[in-house]
Amino acid sequence: MTFKHGDSVNQPFFVKAVQVRTYKNSEQRKYVELVMFAQSGESFPGRIWDWQEKIKTYEREIQQGDVIHITGEASEYQKQIQIRVDHLEWRDEDKATWVDQLLPRPKQSADRLKQRLHGMVSTMEHPILRALAEAVLSDREISERLYSYPAAKTNHHATLHGLLHHIVSMMECANKVQQQYPFLNRDLLLAGVLYHDLGKIGELTHLRDGGDYTLEGKLHGHIHFSATLLQRFGQQQGVVKTEAFKLLQHMVLSHHGKLEWGSPVTPKIPEAVVLHMIDKLDAMMFCMFSEMQSLQPGEWVKRTKSLENDMLKHSLLNETEDYFN
Amino acid sequence: MTFKHGDSVNQPFFVKAVQVRTYKNSEQRKYVELVMFAQSGESFPGRIWDWQEKIKTYEREIQQGDVIHITGEASEYQKQIQIRVDHLEWRDEDKATWVDQLLPRPKQSADRLKQRLHGMVSTMEHPILRALAEAVLSDREISERLYSYPAAKTNHHATLHGLLHHIVSMMECANKVQQQYPFLNRDLLLAGVLYHDLGKIGELTHLRDGGDYTLEGKLHGHIHFSATLLQRFGQQQGVVKTEAFKLLQHMVLSHHGKLEWGSPVTPKIPEAVVLHMIDKLDAMMFCMFSEMQSLQPGEWVKRTKSLENDMLKHSLLNETEDYFN
Amino acid sequence: MTFKHGDSVNQPFFVKAVQVRTYKNSEQRKYVELVMFAQSGESFPGRIWDWQEKIKTYEREIQQGDVIHITGEASEYQKQIQIRVDHLEWRDEDKATWVDQLLPRPKQSADRLKQRLHGMVSTMEHPILRALAEAVLSDREISERLYSYPAAKTNHHATLHGLLHHIVSMMECANKVQQQYPFLNRDLLLAGVLYHDLGKIGELTHLRDGGDYTLEGKLHGHIHFSATLLQRFGQQQGVVKTEAFKLLQHMVLSHHGKLEWGSPVTPKIPEAVVLHMIDKLDAMMFCMFSEMQSLQPGEWVKRTKSLENDMLKHSLLNETEDYFN
Amino acid sequence: MTFKHGDSVNQPFFVKAVQVRTYKNSEQRKYVELVMFAQSGESFPGRIWDWQEKIKTYEREIQQGDVIHITGEASEYQKQIQIRVDHLEWRDEDKATWVDQLLPRPKQSADRLKQRLHGMVSTMEHPILRALAEAVLSDREISERLYSYPAAKTNHHATLHGLLHHIVSMMECANKVQQQYPFLNRDLLLAGVLYHDLGKIGELTHLRDGGDYTLEGKLHGHIHFSATLLQRFGQQQGVVKTEAFKLLQHMVLSHHGKLEWGSPVTPKIPEAVVLHMIDKLDAMMFCMFSEMQSLQPGEWVKRTKSLENDMLKHSLLNETEDYFN
Amino acid sequence: MTFKHGDSVNQPFFVKAVQVRTYKNSEQRKYVELVMFAQSGESFPGRIWDWQEKIKTYEREIQQGDVIHITGEASEYQKQIQIRVDHLEWRDEDKATWVDQLLPRPKQSADRLKQRLHGMVSTMEHPILRALAEAVLSDREISERLYSYPAAKTNHHATLHGLLHHIVSMMECANKVQQQYPFLNRDLLLAGVLYHDLGKIGELTHLRDGGDYTLEGKLHGHIHFSATLLQRFGQQQGVVKTEAFKLLQHMVLSHHGKLEWGSPVTPKIPEAVVLHMIDKLDAMMFCMFSEMQSLQPGEWVKRTKSLENDMLKHSLLNETEDYFN
Amino acid sequence: MTFKHGDSVNQPFFVKAVQVRTYKNSEQRKYVELVMFAQSGESFPGRIWDWQEKIKTYEREIQQGDVIHITGEASEYQKQIQIRVDHLEWRDEDKATWVDQLLPRPKQSADRLKQRLHGMVSTMEHPILRALAEAVLSDREISERLYSYPAAKTNHHATLHGLLHHIVSMMECANKVQQQYPFLNRDLLLAGVLYHDLGKIGELTHLRDGGDYTLEGKLHGHIHFSATLLQRFGQQQGVVKTEAFKLLQHMVLSHHGKLEWGSPVTPKIPEAVVLHMIDKLDAMMFCMFSEMQSLQPGEWVKRTKSLENDMLKHSLLNETEDYFN
Repeated sequence: MTFKHGDSVNQPFFVKAVQVRTYKNSEQRKYVELVMFAQSGESFPGRIWDWQEKIKTYEREIQQGDVIHITGEASEYQKQIQIRVDHLEWRDEDKATWVDQLLPRPKQSADRLKQRLHGMVSTMEHPILRALAEAVLSDREISERLYSYPAAKTNHHATLHGLLHHIVSMMECANKVQQQYPFLNRDLLLAGVLYHDLGKIGELTHLRDGGDYTLEGKLHGHIHFSATLLQRFGQQQGVVKTEAFKLLQHMVLSHHGKLEWGSPVTPKIPEAVVLHMIDKLDAMMFCMFSEMQSLQPGEWVKRTKSLENDMLKHSLLNETEDYFN
Repeated sequence: MTFKHGDSVNQPFFVKAVQVRTYKNSEQRKYVELVMFAQSGESFPGRIWDWQEKIKTYEREIQQGDVIHITGEASEYQKQIQIRVDHLEWRDEDKATWVDQLLPRPKQSADRLKQRLHGMVSTMEHPILRALAEAVLSDREISERLYSYPAAKTNHHATLHGLLHHIVSMMECANKVQQQYPFLNRDLLLAGVLYHDLGKIGELTHLRDGGDYTLEGKLHGHIHFSATLLQRFGQQQGVVKTEAFKLLQHMVLSHHGKLEWGSPVTPKIPEAVVLHMIDKLDAMMFCMFSEMQSLQPGEWVKRTKSLENDMLKHSLLNETEDYFN
Repeated sequence: MTFKHGDSVNQPFFVKAVQVRTYKNSEQRKYVELVMFAQSGESFPGRIWDWQEKIKTYEREIQQGDVIHITGEASEYQKQIQIRVDHLEWRDEDKATWVDQLLPRPKQSADRLKQRLHGMVSTMEHPILRALAEAVLSDREISERLYSYPAAKTNHHATLHGLLHHIVSMMECANKVQQQYPFLNRDLLLAGVLYHDLGKIGELTHLRDGGDYTLEGKLHGHIHFSATLLQRFGQQQGVVKTEAFKLLQHMVLSHHGKLEWGSPVTPKIPEAVVLHMIDKLDAMMFCMFSEMQSLQPGEWVKRTKSLENDMLKHSLLNETEDYFN
Repeated sequence: MTFKHGDSVNQPFFVKAVQVRTYKNSEQRKYVELVMFAQSGESFPGRIWDWQEKIKTYEREIQQGDVIHITGEASEYQKQIQIRVDHLEWRDEDKATWVDQLLPRPKQSADRLKQRLHGMVSTMEHPILRALAEAVLSDREISERLYSYPAAKTNHHATLHGLLHHIVSMMECANKVQQQYPFLNRDLLLAGVLYHDLGKIGELTHLRDGGDYTLEGKLHGHIHFSATLLQRFGQQQGVVKTEAFKLLQHMVLSHHGKLEWGSPVTPKIPEAVVLHMIDKLDAMMFCMFSEMQSLQPGEWVKRTKSLENDMLKHSLLNETEDYFN
Repeated sequence: MTFKHGDSVNQPFFVKAVQVRTYKNSEQRKYVELVMFAQSGESFPGRIWDWQEKIKTYEREIQQGDVIHITGEASEYQKQIQIRVDHLEWRDEDKATWVDQLLPRPKQSADRLKQRLHGMVSTMEHPILRALAEAVLSDREISERLYSYPAAKTNHHATLHGLLHHIVSMMECANKVQQQYPFLNRDLLLAGVLYHDLGKIGELTHLRDGGDYTLEGKLHGHIHFSATLLQRFGQQQGVVKTEAFKLLQHMVLSHHGKLEWGSPVTPKIPEAVVLHMIDKLDAMMFCMFSEMQSLQPGEWVKRTKSLENDMLKHSLLNETEDYFN
Repeated sequence: MTFKHGDSVNQPFFVKAVQVRTYKNSEQRKYVELVMFAQSGESFPGRIWDWQEKIKTYEREIQQGDVIHITGEASEYQKQIQIRVDHLEWRDEDKATWVDQLLPRPKQSADRLKQRLHGMVSTMEHPILRALAEAVLSDREISERLYSYPAAKTNHHATLHGLLHHIVSMMECANKVQQQYPFLNRDLLLAGVLYHDLGKIGELTHLRDGGDYTLEGKLHGHIHFSATLLQRFGQQQGVVKTEAFKLLQHMVLSHHGKLEWGSPVTPKIPEAVVLHMIDKLDAMMFCMFSEMQSLQPGEWVKRTKSLENDMLKHSLLNETEDYFN
């Protein structure tokens, strides 16, 4: 953690979320709740007290997406470091540069990852499945989002182009698993990987817009939206009555593996079983690798929603650039 | 149960499902597995042994949907009565009449139920929700299925126009509950009832075709298909971005109430909570009423998947024609 | 929430609970822990430090049920607003007026609700069930408590005559559900509603006395006490051997619906199934309505023990006075 | 097991339960379903086919409680041995003698067990708890049932005076456990043992009457009936407001240990925790001892509802007369 | 399934298990229970009635491991085909040849699999982990069992050298997964695969001896025996205090992934997480592949303990020799 | 609790754990996290801020096991009292005396408990089981740890020679239970008690060394280590192939009673069932007795991991020196 209780703060932050609140028994008094990215890639809550006074000086509201230079103090509140903002300044001139530095992102560039994704799709052979995969990549609006959105709000790959990062890693893992178990249909696996989390582009917002759940995200979930997008592309291609399409749609709907994990049906073909396992494996590998990067051997990662246990960083682990090859 | 072990059988049946099987170690020998409706409305398994001999006489294969007059014997096998077919005759001339008599159906006619359904929809006031409801009723292909399909394979309302029966009962129940809790939006409830199980028309086949799961039914489930149909009508009406549509879609997706019961999201608005409870209530009322009809007071209904307990038919219950008013 | 961290406090409160505590390593120093109702109907914890000093000034102990005017400060402690009492004054002269204003209560008066309850009971026809219902209303001690007690410590209807509020709403809901499913025995449903939570009058104290669990409440639970009261009235009426009595006792014992929710038996007659569902429905409707009253459309109610999910206040909900009609 | 498939049968049985049934599609044909105790102490189902014919010969209906000499054949049906009755004769003259031989019973006589029970009660010192214990033993109707009823329908101690057997064993075990943990109140433990299953005398019938559930047993359960009896004796003694009574009632209500095992409250005093554990221990010891008596070392007892596992009879177990000392 | 009810049987079988039983009420009458492998690789129960007569002719007891030529009849009993033996003959002269044909085995020879295993071990680099792996392969008694035992009693790889089959497939899969996630320690993964199920050689018997649980298998389980063997080899190598050894022992103990699946600790290092997932994946791939081999596209595999769902054999699956490459 | 928020502190503490930490954004600033035993036997967290300054004065690091006299202040932080250390002094001269006073320990001396343990073992009769028990007591290194280690990190018996305390109490309880159920093998029970938690000496450290989990403790668990020790002594005695040894090993492995509680196998012999129940009973008796010692009758113990409920200290409990006799 970058800050400890009592540390003074003096650096720029990206405003991930912002909300002005009123003291209920004194409608004149207001304060601001912030969620901000620091240069370390970590996310911190912030508070500006008596905003009704401060805004007279600034004459400007804080917007989601602003880059602001903060002076203030860190304090531990309910096991979490929170930053009290005493003074702030907008970094409007060099904002673009700062956004680049402040938003968390994978080691590999989006271009490099896109290239790897296109490389995998170009090896697909089944005409319907390949057409369905290419339809995504050719749809400008969809693919732009696919290349830039996070893959989750908090659990794993919650970064710029985190979704792309996750898809590329899973595709290459699926490729290897299919080499091991050759009765599996490789194209079903690759298309399943491409579509399974595509609905994240409707469930979440772009990280520049906060990377939070949309209303549809909360009310419908990403599996429904992934399935709706596949339905749309299937209709475009006129293939919704084919076995390949039905199997692929089944893989999208069942990829959480269990009803209690939010899939309306459970995996009923070998490729759906494998898709679920690779998805879980890749998320866990990402989380363990990420959490262990700031630890010394012998230290433990605390259990999270993704990691069902405390995890030991042991000294036999290899040092690598990214979590996948 | 109509038959006991050892009873002789001599009456017509509707063939709900049929499969010719081969003795594995003697490819010349074949037998037939049947599922059949009797006049009592009950469903029975049947067996025809040494079909390779019998077919020489009949010179005809049995088809799903045939009406056949059977002579044979009932025997109890693994706690279930099964009918051994010694001889059979096709009732081709008066088939239509027999189908009418053999397929199980509710007390109320489809026309009467349709009328009640249209009556309820005609009271809806919210323009978008009413338009979405009317779109279903105006779509000839969809509405014809809606008026005639079963609501389930086995659990409840597994009859001719069982889906319509279930929808009408739920709508009138929803209407009453909304009168009791007037902050609820009545139109959301009614539209939710109409759409929630609409996907059954893709998940199952018509009872004349066996009332069994389709391949899509097994691989995608009816919630996905209900949501896809709502998406289609929402796009037709150009309303998919409205709050009303999003809430309705949420109700469809969440109507099983819990993730482990197959909803990809759980109820997050009051009307979704109510829809789930009315659905469960109506199914249980149907099952208890149906199972108790053939019992004497003091006898018990055995627990089933729908009824979580043995249920006592007590003597204070009222005698009524149908399970709902 | 009425207060925020740092707000000054200057207003009367009702003392719901009070406890004087000693600093363990300094027996001379004492402090007071309070739970208090504010005029907003909300409940707040309070602290008076160094009470051994302050009591020298006041020359009086604080009692549960006192109305005290407090000056002090609100502070957030472990996600909860707590009030530090710097100075206090007893409002003894106008106490009765203040009690009326400070204790939370439903929109409808106790008289109005009582009238509705008596109205429903007067329509009952089964002689034994009606006699059992009237026995409760005629028992002066029992009925006085029934008309004034809360229905729960915190979850739902935790107000003055909250139990009456809950019973009236459930009775009218049961009435409507029975109209929908006419094979159900209406009198069993109404008597079941009346008795199911009657034991709350032994499990809890009057809200004026804190509305907290009694020792019997913790050790025996309200289901046992409801059943004991029904047993008593059944013996008074000489009906404990009748089927109607046995069924009603079963409904009382099974109304939590599942063993893990504290019922020693699960529902085994249709009316017991319905009683459980109406109870759950009414509690959820109350909670959602209450929690949403202070929210704007688009805001979310946080999940609680009663509400298994965050709940959206959407803009299609109707504005109404009370949660039921 | 005494009989195997195909064995001929020629011996007397006690009729535990009897039901005449009609073939539904032939109202003239009837058959009889029996449950019978053999001399081995085992219970067997029986069938008499075409009873409408046989009864013409016998000119007499079979009653629950009859002793009948049967000739017929054993056959395995659905993993259970069932006896086909070809001919039967009533043993009316020496019926009493046969009942004594046919009903299963513990090694120790009821008199011996009663003496041990009275011995334990006579050591109780707390006046209220002792009075409550003696009230049971002095109530002629209650104590006669207590001395003769089974403790369960099937799981454990399902024999003549099985309830007494269970209570005596648990009391002596409780006595030893209290010696080990002397902060526990011995009289609470002993009174708790006496009352915890007392309701079995209302939940079940006497073994001579079949030892099956009564209607109240199914609808209310024995915990409610035990609590009702304790309430009655408490009122008789005028002690229902004492701490001792409230604690004892808590022990009765909580003795199943968990909500999901049918207790409406969970154990909240040390003696209630111990009562639950001793109850479970004694039932398991009984079951393991009983099941292992007919096995050779190295053989396994199959898992049952009471035994959560297959259990090995190993060669280090001691040979003893009864399962407790 | 090779046989149907009523088929006559005339072919050799391998006796997997045999037990002579006595009719309890007629100690002179005996029958034999058999479990036998047919040439199809399937396992069947068998019965020889009135063995006390037949043995007079044969003058010989049947032993586990015998090859017997049977004439008799197949009949369906409780959903399972069972073979009634009317006559039998021992195939003593050509027994070895028949054992080879009758015991189920993988497509790949033990030699080929052994070679692949040695190939993988020869690439290990960490001195301690490699030494621990080689210690197994050099221990003649252990390695001979490792090369020939089944990997389970029934679920998966329950064949001759099934354990070796499973280990080789998992090792090559682990190798690929480590290539994908290079921060994982490859040698830990390979050693973990080698040791995780090694205890099967104590939990089960050789398939020639029935492939059933040993007493230790039932009382201790294979995880304990795997850990004991690793402890032994660790002491031999003098490495039990090294981090590598402790991590490897952790992987063995945690490889079932969850406490409720029988691991005394849950995975706490990345390699343990991966080992568990690969183990589960490989078992499921084996089961799906095996079960689907005898099906046509469009047919379904019934759910089993290993497969949590019915599984569809779809038409896009590839035809391959073995389930892994 | 000894301290309240705001109390000043001035007394010696035993350092149970110590860690120096760095402020991440200012590597020069350091602080110390302590866990300390006070004279009351309670454990408290402590903090020393700006240690980089203070250490210049002290010129000495704090070590686990030090006794330090602290002046500072208690403050409540996240529901826990924490001690801010303003000044500290090492008590090196009288350290041994203080360690004796500061480490929590049972009422009975280790010598008295050891004597009771040896007394029980000396009554064992089965030669193998007695030899296995005596082997532990004769192994100097093992027995010294057995006589001094805690039985748990926090739940129960987390004191000096807490393991010995637990074993003696369980042995005498087992002895009594075996007297009640004499078919149980007494020596198996006693040996099972002795070995079941022996692995704690590897899972935890001595309380002087902090009483915390070792790395092996976290990665392997104490059941594995108990089993490994039994294996070692079994090999020493040459008895690992005997039934007695196998049964005893089964008892060790299964003593947590359920897979989800960390046993790799569940109890399959009567003695294993009893061992599990006595273990659970003794832990609960210890916890209830300990927690209730500082309470008045009528007060409640809060639920903990060991106590599944809030527990009432009632007024009928007896006053005793220790929790067992």
